[in-house]
Amino acid sequence: MQNRPTIALAMLPMLNAELMTDAHWSRLEALCRVPDREALTTFAEPRAFDLLAQAEILLTGWGCPMIDTHVLDQAPQLRAVVHAAGTVKQHMDPVCWQRGIAVTAAAAANAVPVAEYTLAAILFANKRVLRLQQRYREAREFRWWPMEFPRLGNYRKVVGIVGASHVGRKVIELLRPFDLSVVLYDPFVDATAAAALGVRKLELDDLMREADVVSLHAPALAETRHLIDRRRLALMRDGATLINTARGWIVDHAALEEELRSGRIDAILDTTEPEILPAESPLYELPNVFLTPHIAGSMGVETQRMADLALDEIERFVKGKEFRYAIRAEDLARIA
Amino acid sequence: MQNRPTIALAMLPMLNAELMTDAHWSRLEALCRVPDREALTTFAEPRAFDLLAQAEILLTGWGCPMIDTHVLDQAPQLRAVVHAAGTVKQHMDPVCWQRGIAVTAAAAANAVPVAEYTLAAILFANKRVLRLQQRYREAREFRWWPMEFPRLGNYRKVVGIVGASHVGRKVIELLRPFDLSVVLYDPFVDATAAAALGVRKLELDDLMREADVVSLHAPALAETRHLIDRRRLALMRDGATLINTARGWIVDHAALEEELRSGRIDAILDTTEPEILPAESPLYELPNVFLTPHIAGSMGVETQRMADLALDEIERFVKGKEFRYAIRAEDLARIA
Repeated sequence: MQNRPTIALAMLPMLNAELMTDAHWSRLEALCRVPDREALTTFAEPRAFDLLAQAEILLTGWGCPMIDTHVLDQAPQLRAVVHAAGTVKQHMDPVCWQRGIAVTAAAAANAVPVAEYTLAAILFANKRVLRLQQRYREAREFRWWPMEFPRLGNYRKVVGIVGASHVGRKVIELLRPFDLSVVLYDPFVDATAAAALGVRKLELDDLMREADVVSLHAPALAETRHLIDRRRLALMRDGATLINTARGWIVDHAALEEELRSGRIDAILDTTEPEILPAESPLYELPNVFLTPHIAGSMGVETQRMADLALDEIERFVKGKEFRYAIRAEDLARIA
Repeated sequence: MQNRPTIALAMLPMLNAELMTDAHWSRLEALCRVPDREALTTFAEPRAFDLLAQAEILLTGWGCPMIDTHVLDQAPQLRAVVHAAGTVKQHMDPVCWQRGIAVTAAAAANAVPVAEYTLAAILFANKRVLRLQQRYREAREFRWWPMEFPRLGNYRKVVGIVGASHVGRKVIELLRPFDLSVVLYDPFVDATAAAALGVRKLELDDLMREADVVSLHAPALAETRHLIDRRRLALMRDGATLINTARGWIVDHAALEEELRSGRIDAILDTTEPEILPAESPLYELPNVFLTPHIAGSMGVETQRMADLALDEIERFVKGKEFRYAIRAEDLARIA
């Protein structure tokens, strides 16, 4: 390609190493001029000033510093920001859209591992696999386990999806091969759109009552603060499971802790509030809680799926096409 | 229906209660004459003599006593045995086939939950989710987890399936939506048949070497005794996971215990040898072992899927059709 646009990278260096294999670098350098492979971690240093002055595209990732008016003023050639991760809100000031910068992100690619984690969690939750593992370790003898866990199993159970986000939709898609019925709460999805997704639309309270597993996929917005509160947790069926791979923000954690201490419901939590729980939190020890350290999103080799999507988007841009996953100013209010 | 054949049930009473909902009973009684809803647990009692004398069909389940020459002699009307569970070998003497009894079983329905458990186990294994859960509980602080678990994640990993049984095939089918490549070892499947399944056929040693997850779905036969021995376990990649939802019989457990103690590989074991491990077994405590008490098969509400399949087969029989899942004498040597 003759007029390869110039690109600069900005993200955590450890991520940069994981994200880009040799094949990714070859592809990037065939598409763009890459004056420096080392990702920027700050825009306030001489190397950054030099790269920003030339960059037509910024390839960003986790840990990218804020792109605000000041940064944009130093980047007069900048026409596009391609984010090789999920959310752009933490590093992109709304002024980027006012300046006409084209923006895209790998939220769709990042949704895949979250949906995969969620699918595995749903299948294990209905079957009470995580509980049975603990009980077996305690008992170390034969038991007729269904007696201890009534309605155990994945057959004609109801899965409640809260939020038809990228992840929520991917979970719905992945659930199709199973004998489970899926209900959805999402105020932006009407009954026709829900039917097209193959799910039944419910109000949130009804979903909390009906579902054997409630899985949260709503964004952290002012309106979703403690969406799952004490009253709604109390609506859940005995023996149901709450799965949170979205954000701790959505759930009233004092109420959740109380409900979990009672042992009435189970929880599989990849996200909590705070993000890393204090060492004395009972959630680490409760037998009905399965806790992971916010790892459902892209990790390890999964970051390469985001790099693949980012490179696809860069290729579209270089060829003068629109981004497939363009993020517009008006999207910001409803996305994560 | 006018000439409803007479049916008798033989299985564990607790299973009988779980298996048959009111809807199942209604359907069964529309198809057959059911002189006694209570399942037989022995054929050596007056109630059994009476039911066997009339029965044209036996609906069997787990815990059905052996059907041998002596039992057949008491059941002169018997034309079919419909087994609402996976394997018929434990309760059906080969003489049943010599006498021309039509036989079917719900192995295909029982395969579904095993395949679902396996799918969830594979997704969690590649992502090292079960390990991360333990490490987070220990550390209770932020870590860059991919550093501890290299190549973590579900992207372009290799899943090795040992045995294209009902379960093995269902796992292959369920793995299609994921960015994982599947390799298969099965001496009865040639390369063309493997390609039709969308998998690459490998010799077992090569599969052990290449796969990030090795999942066992071979039957317990003389030829599969310790198929996974010390030498083959040593071929597995560092950080790979062995999943066994088939039978402990297939794996040399002394060698497995040694390999797991070293921490080099992980294991997710639903079946072991012996079936319930002795209380002092280190497998209960090793951080790289996830142990469940043989629950991957149909449990709780999942037994209703087997009842649905059994009723479909009874309906075919009553209408004069062949069984969909007929088991023939010549099948016995290669199935579980």
